[in-house]
Parts: sequence; C-alpha cells; structure tokens
Amino acid sequence: MPQSPEPQSTPVESAGQPPLDLPADVAARLKHDAAGLVAAIIQQHDSKEVLMLGWMDDEALRRTLSEGRVTFYSRSRQEYWRKGDTSGHFQFVKSVALDCDGDALLINVDQVGAACHTGTTTCFDGRELAAVVGHRDA
Amino acid sequence: MPQSPEPQSTPVESAGQPPLDLPADVAARLKHDAAGLVAAIIQQHDSKEVLMLGWMDDEALRRTLSEGRVTFYSRSRQEYWRKGDTSGHFQFVKSVALDCDGDALLINVDQVGAACHTGTTTCFDGRELAAVVGHRDA
Repeated sequence: MPQSPEPQSTPVESAGQPPLDLPADVAARLKHDAAGLVAAIIQQHDSKEVLMLGWMDDEALRRTLSEGRVTFYSRSRQEYWRKGDTSGHFQFVKSVALDCDGDALLINVDQVGAACHTGTTTCFDGRELAAVVGHRDA
Repeated sequence: MPQSPEPQSTPVESAGQPPLDLPADVAARLKHDAAGLVAAIIQQHDSKEVLMLGWMDDEALRRTLSEGRVTFYSRSRQEYWRKGDTSGHFQFVKSVALDCDGDALLINVDQVGAACHTGTTTCFDGRELAAVVGHRDA
C-alpha cells in the first residue's frame, strides 16, 4: 500500500511557518480595544478558579487556538509570550469561548504550577479589596 | 479659622450622594488602558461560573466597592451602567480582588437571572471556538 503523505493538520510553531490564519468568522467577531487587543480570562478547567487575565491580538489567539497552549500579547513589553516557556508553568488549552460582544475570551486550561509570576496560584490570591457586600433582599 | 475650599476630588455623578473617594492605595495600584479602564471579570460566587467581562474606570470601581452592586463603564455608550437597573438582573457583590499588576479585577457576585443581555446564563455560553486541546504529556 502506498504511503500517503503526512496530512497538514495542526500547525506547529517553530521555524518558519504559521500556516493558518485566524478563521474569518472568528476574526470578524473580535472587537478590539484601541491597541488591537481583547481580554483573555484564564480559568482552571476543573476547579473553576479564575487564574489570571491576559491580552491577545489576533495572532496570539490564532496561536492559542492552534497550539494547545496559551500565547498572550504583552502590553508592557509589546511582544508575544507563551505561558510556561520561561517558567515551566504551562497552560494547556481545554476550551476557548468568545463572548457575545467579541471583546473577551474565556479560556479553560490545565495550569501547571502557579499561574502568577509572583508565585501565588492565581493572580488574585491575597489581593482582595475592601468592599460592601450586597444581598438579594437588602 | 478660615474655611478652606472644597478639594477637587472624585467627580460624583447624580445629585447628592456617593460619600467616598476610591481609597488612595487602590487608586495607586490600578493600571489603566489608554481609555482609563481596567477589565472586570464577573464570577458567580458559588458555582464559580465566569459570567461576563465588563470595564470599569475609577468611579465605576468606587461605586462597585461601596454600593454592594456592580457598576460598569460602557465603552460603546461611554456611560456608567449598573447591572440590573434596566433588566432586573442584579449583580450583588460578594468580593472584589485586584490582580498582581493592577489591570484586572475579579468580582464574585450573586447574579440574579441571566448575566448576558442575550438571555444566556453567561456571555460565553454556546460561543465556543474550535481549538486544539493540549495535554501535559503530549
């Protein structure tokens, strides 16, 4: 039986490519801010803890949808960064959803280690603000 | 003693109330985008579902911290809106945390009814994007 060529499936990052564009229907739904970014909420898929919030432009989202790991765009450094490449604290993608008005992504992940660069599990741990609590029957 | 003039503090919308300024230590930690806003992730406090993402300037955050209900700033309409005032779908504040770099809030709420203006429970329901799933041992 003749060998069939390896199908061009999931794009792999590394030298030379990015093979795919962001799907046109997804690109059309994105509502960017003035810097061309949308917000990406990162949630641990099983515990449902909200781990962090990052920013994505179309290319960061394209990589995230196609690589199985989360890539952000750093507003301060103005560059792409793939979570875990320097820390080992990878975020493996479990699902991605885009909200009703196209300016926020909810990405469920399997987080390896601490999500926060400060070493806390989430970027919100121990950072509560004093707030008045509301009640349905107040 | 001569009367000193009223300090020019936080502008107050609507007649007569909001008593407090945003605490100075909180204001100092906020890292706004070009439009003066930070992202606010809204999570149902018990189920841990992420309901929606909105935007807040300092005044919207001040109101949220002091009123027991969530107030956003609408980027499209350029005005404050308090969730539930027109829909009845109130968001009662349970806790508020500001992330490590000051550009995102995580607000746990008790949500009355649907969080999304389209009628879905969350703004992400039924809006999944096709994505490659990643694994720790891939």
